[in-house]
Amino acid sequence: MTNYKIPVIPGDGIGPDIVAEGMKVIDAAGEKYGFDVDWINYPHGADHYLETGELISEDTLRELGAYPAIYLGSIGDPRVAPGILEKGILLAARFYFDQYINLRPIKLLEGVWTPLKNKTPEDIDFVVVRENTEDMYIGIGGRAARGASQKLLEVKRNLYSAKFDLDIDTDSEEIAYQIGMISKEGTRRVMKYAFDLAQKRSGHLSSVDKANVLSDIYGFWREEFESMADNYPDVETDFNYVDAITMWFVKNPEWFDVVVTPNMFGDIITDLGAMIQGGLGLAPGGNINPEGTSMFEPIHGSAPKYKGQNKVNPIATIWAGAMMIEQLGENEAAANIVSAIERNISEARVRTYDMGGSAGTSDVGDEIARLVLEE
Amino acid sequence: MTNYKIPVIPGDGIGPDIVAEGMKVIDAAGEKYGFDVDWINYPHGADHYLETGELISEDTLRELGAYPAIYLGSIGDPRVAPGILEKGILLAARFYFDQYINLRPIKLLEGVWTPLKNKTPEDIDFVVVRENTEDMYIGIGGRAARGASQKLLEVKRNLYSAKFDLDIDTDSEEIAYQIGMISKEGTRRVMKYAFDLAQKRSGHLSSVDKANVLSDIYGFWREEFESMADNYPDVETDFNYVDAITMWFVKNPEWFDVVVTPNMFGDIITDLGAMIQGGLGLAPGGNINPEGTSMFEPIHGSAPKYKGQNKVNPIATIWAGAMMIEQLGENEAAANIVSAIERNISEARVRTYDMGGSAGTSDVGDEIARLVLEE
Ligand SMILES: CC(C)[C@H](C(=O)O)[C@@H](O)C(=O)O
Ligand SMILES: CC(C)[C@H](C(=O)O)[C@@H](O)C(=O)O
Repeated sequence: MTNYKIPVIPGDGIGPDIVAEGMKVIDAAGEKYGFDVDWINYPHGADHYLETGELISEDTLRELGAYPAIYLGSIGDPRVAPGILEKGILLAARFYFDQYINLRPIKLLEGVWTPLKNKTPEDIDFVVVRENTEDMYIGIGGRAARGASQKLLEVKRNLYSAKFDLDIDTDSEEIAYQIGMISKEGTRRVMKYAFDLAQKRSGHLSSVDKANVLSDIYGFWREEFESMADNYPDVETDFNYVDAITMWFVKNPEWFDVVVTPNMFGDIITDLGAMIQGGLGLAPGGNINPEGTSMFEPIHGSAPKYKGQNKVNPIATIWAGAMMIEQLGENEAAANIVSAIERNISEARVRTYDMGGSAGTSDVGDEIARLVLEE
Repeated sequence: MTNYKIPVIPGDGIGPDIVAEGMKVIDAAGEKYGFDVDWINYPHGADHYLETGELISEDTLRELGAYPAIYLGSIGDPRVAPGILEKGILLAARFYFDQYINLRPIKLLEGVWTPLKNKTPEDIDFVVVRENTEDMYIGIGGRAARGASQKLLEVKRNLYSAKFDLDIDTDSEEIAYQIGMISKEGTRRVMKYAFDLAQKRSGHLSSVDKANVLSDIYGFWREEFESMADNYPDVETDFNYVDAITMWFVKNPEWFDVVVTPNMFGDIITDLGAMIQGGLGLAPGGNINPEGTSMFEPIHGSAPKYKGQNKVNPIATIWAGAMMIEQLGENEAAANIVSAIERNISEARVRTYDMGGSAGTSDVGDEIARLVLEE
């Protein structure tokens, strides 16, 4: 019997509730498909931070790096200023493990309510491949003096021709700046993943950029995309400005099959994607490094007000668990979990409040685990 | 009789078709409300650029600066690389005239089809105030050497603690970067406009940021917002992460009344807003400098394939025209144009193909002009 060791970070708020259901379902799938899992618990999150002052240490990260996959609940707590926990734990892991692919299936399951008119599960079924380690997310920026602000105004008046000199007095707070960067390697590796995925699916890949305005950074992205497209003559490609693609997600989601996007824009359009697939309770995500340590999570937050109430929907987390065991090579078990989720929903069995039901978090986990074993 | 002189830049593609209808309707409103307009034509756009090599010269901009308002059709042509015309004409004007407010009413008119389920004109009626002269739009960026890319990797591994040294070899193309900046004055002036507008409407103002990740630039934005909120105790405020707000625009547009946003995020969410209000054919925008030269335009592009075909919907442009004459002080005439647009739509009179009709561009302009005179 195959044995997996999987670190779990339940995290904050509803994190422990939902992750428990994900482990329950994976354990059931293991029973059926002949593997078992040792779950290794990590306490990181708001409580741990408030008690010890530690977010996540490099020692812990190094230790986690011994495993191919991490299961994450959710991070965020009203007692801690916005950004501290998200950057110090979630983004720290994404960057430390170089999880350069953020994989987001946007799939309307049979029986799920979408806010869009006239759209069915056939219309909403695509995958977003979000670059996950570069762009505006590199966390480089600062504040500077009025002199810089004066220069900024000159630059603006110069109609895009000037270059800005960043040699500025940073003791002042008259302006704030942020620097985004993408590298050739970083861009090409995520695009390669997306092209390969498109080849396996319907052969259509859409790229997202804003090359008409943020030309330096996203003109580069577009060039790399065009050059890689030459190697994939069987993949049909198109470009979408990020502003326009938000419209097409709402009006014509059926146009998309695989979408590849820089990090910042990917953050925005995958939340929109989550909504058209029925809301955050149903949206899983994978942070993937195919040769290293990946991490799987629901894309929703920690919903502190529902903490410990056995109330919220665990489906996003259970689905993320399926993506995780697929990454580990348990394809059949993963497919079985997804179809158990679908059966539970389409047969209107056990539903939490957000889907119009009154079941608890653990009831949904129980039912999906039961369906996994039954099928 | 009041006389206005208004420069018109019809621009590319369908620009001339739609702007003609806007002028027609404003002329009709002038007849009724006792003003007339001298329209001063400017040829800028793709043809002019391809013939003369000139986008828009500083002399021309200076000349345009003598007028309080400019009427713009649309810019963009397949013969010119993406970004050249948009940056060289549209953004050049926004920056040259320091049009720091991009005003975007998101209003579902009675009788218009929205892609959202269960939403009526009462639910979709808000205004986005987009900062229009700073942020990622300042156009500063470049390419650099692998050394910089190496540094970038180090920074990433340093878990957000390091500062990046931009002293890099720019003869290479291993990385691409873009710098966004916002200034205290630039942030406060647009927020003041938004707070004042919220006071005149329902007293609710929502701010957009990504302070949890792009903390340097948008943490600053958020601080300024909080500090200004202290001066407006009668305005209820909230913060929205840009990723989350795309969900609420689709799920709960009724939550919003006035939304204030940095430039880049504003670009994205106003296109989404255009879609929920019925599509680009219905979405006007104003680029406003309250003390200087403003510019009004439909927010859609130049749709080159429909050029000269008398086919596309002129309503966005006519509505932008109403915003323009309101800016000039003709409030009654402006309100009259908007209500003529609404009557034309709700009484299902004359409609272009995008609204399920078969009328031409000029038929819609004729009908709205007629309704303006009749009311
Ligand atoms: C919580 C936050 C740091 C994160 C992000 O911005 O990437 C989240 O929005 C996501 O999309 O996973
Ligand atoms: C055409 C383009 C430069 C412009 C922008 O990015 O601002 C447009 O998308 C808009 O929103 O007015």
